[in-house]
Amino acid sequence: MRKTAIVGCGMTKFGRRTEGLIDLMTEACHQALRDSNTLHEDFQALFVGNMACNEFEGIQGPANALCSRLGLEPAFASRLENTTASGASAALAGWLAVASGTCNLALVAGGERMTTVPTQSATDIIARMLPPHEYTQGFTLPSMAGLLARRYMLTYNASREALAQVAVKNHHNASLNPDAHLQNLITVEDVLKSPSIADPLRLYDFCPISDGAAAIVLAPLEEAAKFTDAPVLISGIGAANDTHAVQERKDFLTLEAVRVASDAAYRMAGREPREIDVAETHDMATILEIVESEDLGFFEKGEGLNAEEAGTTALKGELPLNTSGGLKARGHPLGATGVAQIVEVVHQLQRRCGRRQVEADVGLACNMAGFGHSAIVSIMERAS
Amino acid sequence: MRKTAIVGCGMTKFGRRTEGLIDLMTEACHQALRDSNTLHEDFQALFVGNMACNEFEGIQGPANALCSRLGLEPAFASRLENTTASGASAALAGWLAVASGTCNLALVAGGERMTTVPTQSATDIIARMLPPHEYTQGFTLPSMAGLLARRYMLTYNASREALAQVAVKNHHNASLNPDAHLQNLITVEDVLKSPSIADPLRLYDFCPISDGAAAIVLAPLEEAAKFTDAPVLISGIGAANDTHAVQERKDFLTLEAVRVASDAAYRMAGREPREIDVAETHDMATILEIVESEDLGFFEKGEGLNAEEAGTTALKGELPLNTSGGLKARGHPLGATGVAQIVEVVHQLQRRCGRRQVEADVGLACNMAGFGHSAIVSIMERAS
Repeated sequence: MRKTAIVGCGMTKFGRRTEGLIDLMTEACHQALRDSNTLHEDFQALFVGNMACNEFEGIQGPANALCSRLGLEPAFASRLENTTASGASAALAGWLAVASGTCNLALVAGGERMTTVPTQSATDIIARMLPPHEYTQGFTLPSMAGLLARRYMLTYNASREALAQVAVKNHHNASLNPDAHLQNLITVEDVLKSPSIADPLRLYDFCPISDGAAAIVLAPLEEAAKFTDAPVLISGIGAANDTHAVQERKDFLTLEAVRVASDAAYRMAGREPREIDVAETHDMATILEIVESEDLGFFEKGEGLNAEEAGTTALKGELPLNTSGGLKARGHPLGATGVAQIVEVVHQLQRRCGRRQVEADVGLACNMAGFGHSAIVSIMERAS
Repeated sequence: MRKTAIVGCGMTKFGRRTEGLIDLMTEACHQALRDSNTLHEDFQALFVGNMACNEFEGIQGPANALCSRLGLEPAFASRLENTTASGASAALAGWLAVASGTCNLALVAGGERMTTVPTQSATDIIARMLPPHEYTQGFTLPSMAGLLARRYMLTYNASREALAQVAVKNHHNASLNPDAHLQNLITVEDVLKSPSIADPLRLYDFCPISDGAAAIVLAPLEEAAKFTDAPVLISGIGAANDTHAVQERKDFLTLEAVRVASDAAYRMAGREPREIDVAETHDMATILEIVESEDLGFFEKGEGLNAEEAGTTALKGELPLNTSGGLKARGHPLGATGVAQIVEVVHQLQRRCGRRQVEADVGLACNMAGFGHSAIVSIMERAS
């Protein structure tokens, strides 16, 4: 396999947008094409991450539409749908295409337009990824997060206040990110006073419903200098699935897909968790950042929340998590998220993050489908 | 890249089925696992081709569900959606995964359950892949096929009767295929007397609405003997897109994506069109088999229908097309089709086609998204 690099990135501001999905992805792609000086290059493939444009916008075949809007024909285009990990699944397909030598230049776009429907409908659309015997009992992704938070607090004697600090931190990071959806600063008290959603979790423990898109350009590392001064190598990538029914999992406190996928990524990169300088996790709810930070190997089981409380994962900490603001505050337009996470890590490695910049040479992104139903973990390194 | 082989196949009977999408894909996958003696092997990836389970069945994330139903975790699973070429897009992803060395065993499943909605709704769901300025004017895939047939007849002075023979041939082939949806024999007169759908095309010029699934197992060629006595090499694979708006195409009589994708596949395989012994085309309407047979390089432009009339593409002809019955008569469960085409070619190369068996050592499958919006062409060869 060829070493494969990210040579350009783009993303829209996340939030409530009036443009359609194809418009948003076009905006992100144009930025990525400019960023990589590939506006006039021939692409061989376009991979699009999107979960549910059918329901949200009533359209089919977004990859055909985007390919043509960008004028990339005859480049091949297809959509990857892997629920909330559709973005990183598209990135994985792009990586396979370039790493295998099949394509020389591949464009990856992730996007979702969600604010076309009421919040409750969006939650329901997402919940229909669960097996019928869970979904029909009223299980939703937020309700599972509530159960996980309760189980974590009971098992590790963790405090509700500490969990709220994840949201406070991520809002702080987002306040320094012009592309973030929620840029307001919040306090622990704000979190604890916000409306209850799935006990013990409250409104401010959860990501908002957002529109947005992100894009990256992939090329062989050996040709990367043609496109950028600051290529970022994808040194490791791993992907794995867990059981469809959450009730079938051996240990509710372990996201097995994250564990297996990150093991594979570390092995491919020849890296260990302690070598990661910055990471984006899939914090759909505050508790998920904590559990993922353990299953990614950053902290021992039961130690994630303590590390968070100690400031280890803050901007100025040893291992800043979700410098972008994360799903929690940058926003979570489903299909965009996995690509946006990669964009943030690349920008950190390229020292382009302004007031939220951290010291980092090796970064990691972890995108999850649903409640850890699938996970894709990418490790990225400065290549120049 | 590693040489990659198909080491096992499975498919359900196509038709009006009562089982759900996941059930149908499970049935096809179990067959493929048995066929390849991989029931107890570790798979690294599952790629699922499906266009619109959201609309047809109200479910999300079919790849998560299928992976778990088959007990393949922690294998990674994702869905590929490329409208009516979703099946071959999943096969392309599986090929990339194995050819790149990332995976050793990959399972590819394609499926669609369509009879849950009325025919008109199915046509509308598919038509929503067209750009708004075509779709909102009443354009549908069948209406485009009608325009193409008229243009072909006018340009090449072709007869309506000759076109009907495509349907007659494909029903004949399907009558010899136990898995086909429509197994009844029809005459040219039956076609010409069937209800008008999109002038000059009539009901019997079009594929039916079907449920069904198909699956293949992919492995490195050098390990194929562990799994089967009759591995089939994927010697070439090519993929390309055309404009989203059909009105923007330079020549309505050329399916440019098919031309570009097949050129790439021939180049990779080191083959020429005249070396192909058997092929499956994407005959959603009779006219498409004709135009594709030209753009795949089998016949000169304007000669496809003459070749059909001369019997060249019949079971006993020089280049049998759609021995399975094609989309026209085997059926076209959208996401299943691209995989089912590959299964038919593999079975022909393995001499497992019973009364529809032809002499073939090299075969080709051409799966199209929509009206040639995207095309994936695979060339397969006997490897033992």
